[in-house]
Amino acid sequence: MSDATAKKDPPETNNEAPVFDADFRRRLEDLIRWRRDVRRFRADAVDGTLVDELIGLAALAPSVGNSQPWRFVKVADTGRRARVIENFEACNADALNDYSGEKAKSYAALKLSGLRDAPVHLAVFCDTGTEAGHGVGRKTMPEMLPYSVVGALSTLWLASRAHGLGMGWVSILEADVIAGILDVPDGWALIAYLCIGYPEEEHIDPELERHGWQERLDVSGFVLER
Amino acid sequence: MSDATAKKDPPETNNEAPVFDADFRRRLEDLIRWRRDVRRFRADAVDGTLVDELIGLAALAPSVGNSQPWRFVKVADTGRRARVIENFEACNADALNDYSGEKAKSYAALKLSGLRDAPVHLAVFCDTGTEAGHGVGRKTMPEMLPYSVVGALSTLWLASRAHGLGMGWVSILEADVIAGILDVPDGWALIAYLCIGYPEEEHIDPELERHGWQERLDVSGFVLER
Repeated sequence: MSDATAKKDPPETNNEAPVFDADFRRRLEDLIRWRRDVRRFRADAVDGTLVDELIGLAALAPSVGNSQPWRFVKVADTGRRARVIENFEACNADALNDYSGEKAKSYAALKLSGLRDAPVHLAVFCDTGTEAGHGVGRKTMPEMLPYSVVGALSTLWLASRAHGLGMGWVSILEADVIAGILDVPDGWALIAYLCIGYPEEEHIDPELERHGWQERLDVSGFVLER
Repeated sequence: MSDATAKKDPPETNNEAPVFDADFRRRLEDLIRWRRDVRRFRADAVDGTLVDELIGLAALAPSVGNSQPWRFVKVADTGRRARVIENFEACNADALNDYSGEKAKSYAALKLSGLRDAPVHLAVFCDTGTEAGHGVGRKTMPEMLPYSVVGALSTLWLASRAHGLGMGWVSILEADVIAGILDVPDGWALIAYLCIGYPEEEHIDPELERHGWQERLDVSGFVLER
């Protein structure tokens, strides 16, 4: 289709639905395939306006009842970062105790966060007390509120990769401790602690696959018909 | 989080990292802006191989420890669909009781699912008992397992839109009842019941915004610095 190369108008004024062609879909598939959880970052700074732009794109994600429960905390303070790293290291040492033998050796060799190197630390919370959305869709499945935040993070991940940025999601942390370190409002629940920066290396295979921890499974085995 | 990537079908994918340019990023932004939660579907059938292709793309999403906990159930049986619709209608009537006055009238007028019209019903579960990933990243935040499934759904949403398909996420359902209707294995927790099909109309504004339920909020008010 000819509109593949057309420049779009500013989004505010463009009310004509775009048509996506096969070429775009191929590039989108590349983006989906090459988006990695990154834990090895270059020291290069990331432009602060780019970070804000990416947060703006993330906030275009769907949310239950249009509740927009995502809350972002840019963590720049060295002291707070050090306390987050301390919590990660304690949790990671504790997790190592769950493994033994070869699996313990393998776990200890994994690089599970890029907290020390990533130029950008972004903590993402769910405002569990938000009135926005007026409760629609949350009565039977209250977990839809944090799920909405996860959807925004997934968008952030893809958009970051399209800018050549890598993102890593660190979950080996105590959510309440992190909320305390960052002094966030009551009712904000930690969904993700993210490291963002330019990746040291690019791989199509995930780090945990490359290092023999967990291989990819055939998705066709995960589909039932009813 | 770690993630999964196809290693089995490299024909169209080389191993050189793609570079995404400004033109692609503009189209990606269009995709993100125009992806809607769709509840109004045309009757046109959706090619079954396309649905499988989209599930394959969703399964390239990141997952904690590369655990790939997503499980998909294609619901084609008319009797099962009718029981799902029955559960939605009971839950929706119950939810209406939470509102009064103008808000109740407004709620009653909202179209909150396209279950009767959508050609494709896809239920998505999290296998809470999966051994894949060997527990990495789930000790402190066990919710990372369902969050991984949500990330896959977000990918599915964008990829569907790139094919001109609309997707709607129905959460006004009792998860356990739906699991029973679909007779899924023990330990599978419902994450989403999805309607997929070609949309009747295209809008850049979400349905809940257009119908005055909840407007879009300024994301800059949701960003803190620490």
